Amino acid sequence: MNRKIDVCLSPGLIDCYESMGKIVIVADIFRATSCMAVALAHGVKKIKPVSSLVECKQLQDEGYIAAAERGGQKVDGFDLGNSPFHYMDESLADQTIAMTTTNGTMALNSCKDAKQVIAGSFLNFSPLVNYLRKTKLDILIVCAGWKGKVNLEDSLYAGALVQALQLHCQVGGDAAYMCSSLFAAAKADLRSFLDRADHTHRLIRLGQEEDIDFCLSIDKYTEVPVLRKDGHLHKMSLNDMLI
Amino acid sequence: MNRKIDVCLSPGLIDCYESMGKIVIVADIFRATSCMAVALAHGVKKIKPVSSLVECKQLQDEGYIAAAERGGQKVDGFDLGNSPFHYMDESLADQTIAMTTTNGTMALNSCKDAKQVIAGSFLNFSPLVNYLRKTKLDILIVCAGWKGKVNLEDSLYAGALVQALQLHCQVGGDAAYMCSSLFAAAKADLRSFLDRADHTHRLIRLGQEEDIDFCLSIDKYTEVPVLRKDGHLHKMSLNDMLI
Repeated sequence: MNRKIDVCLSPGLIDCYESMGKIVIVADIFRATSCMAVALAHGVKKIKPVSSLVECKQLQDEGYIAAAERGGQKVDGFDLGNSPFHYMDESLADQTIAMTTTNGTMALNSCKDAKQVIAGSFLNFSPLVNYLRKTKLDILIVCAGWKGKVNLEDSLYAGALVQALQLHCQVGGDAAYMCSSLFAAAKADLRSFLDRADHTHRLIRLGQEEDIDFCLSIDKYTEVPVLRKDGHLHKMSLNDMLI
Repeated sequence: MNRKIDVCLSPGLIDCYESMGKIVIVADIFRATSCMAVALAHGVKKIKPVSSLVECKQLQDEGYIAAAERGGQKVDGFDLGNSPFHYMDESLADQTIAMTTTNGTMALNSCKDAKQVIAGSFLNFSPLVNYLRKTKLDILIVCAGWKGKVNLEDSLYAGALVQALQLHCQVGGDAAYMCSSLFAAAKADLRSFLDRADHTHRLIRLGQEEDIDFCLSIDKYTEVPVLRKDGHLHKMSLNDMLI
């Protein structure tokens, strides 16, 4: 068992990790990578994650549906925000979305030399785990965090993946052990554990509590968003993804 | 209870935190901040933490006892390394030490605008907790980590402090909750929990396993190292420290 699984707890620490040749799972549970799973499951053709509002606006001008969130809220002048419920809309079928969020889209663009980049979420947890068990490459989970700080929800998700893969991968470092231990403490009731999380408080203040419950739902979808060479996330099933 | 306690899990994330006006506890459990406690308890007059080997060498030329560690080992040409047992030497009494280590001394120098900077360790855990309970300022624990990555031992120490102060301070963020949860999982047997830590493996490889056990000893000393305006750490007791 030579392959490793490790966790980068914040994009601010990404320079400490090697992503080249690895499968990178980016986690922004509340809510960017969860929204991506929802959008693709509901028929969106593909999603381009972009780091800046300016870039997102340019793509809007080119005909993309433009989604932009900063500080937990939709940014004026854009078509969509960062609630999963925004993406359960039949009118988005076959559309292409450009998306920029406070943390997640930047994290997705921070691992350009990875072999494969996947947007992780609880919404397709088991399909992703099944896929990762079949691959042989090292895995790096990159938590999007909040403005550089680590957060509970992404760390818990990372811990859930580490636990699910610990018989298939060598745990690669202290951060992975921390996340695994955290998940063990929280897994009996993730929602209650997350009552203390900064982002839970932020979303409740913004009236978005139902987003929390939704983003913690396990296995609503069978396919996962994978970043392809065209710079867009596409919905892929296990057999399509194998590299 | 308006005062807060928060944790910065790596010096690489320090820009996300405000240290101005706070009490900052720097933790490099294996082994820099533990060594500092040992040295001062054994009669060393004061310790200047410096970031670079060059600066440490210059101070050696000026008459300081020079301690330098990189990658877990003493650096050639310096007087001392980073084992706590190096500092239990009567010949060091009343001497002034310049110290540079892979992680800890840089962390100590990263919070220049804090109201007070303290080198934390398990070796004087209760005296420090008793002091912090008497103060009213916000507390930021800065974990030294390992070359930018987070590590288990410093995170556990941070969690121990958060737990000990949670009735006196508001827990300030997700990182502090993570550390507290981690400590709760580990506290029954810190040493066994740390068997999986990267730095435990590193120290065992280097033949320094007894350093691990020593650095996890609780309350060997009653005084704590505090960084004073002269840029040196001095041994201070609770009443001397109050600000």
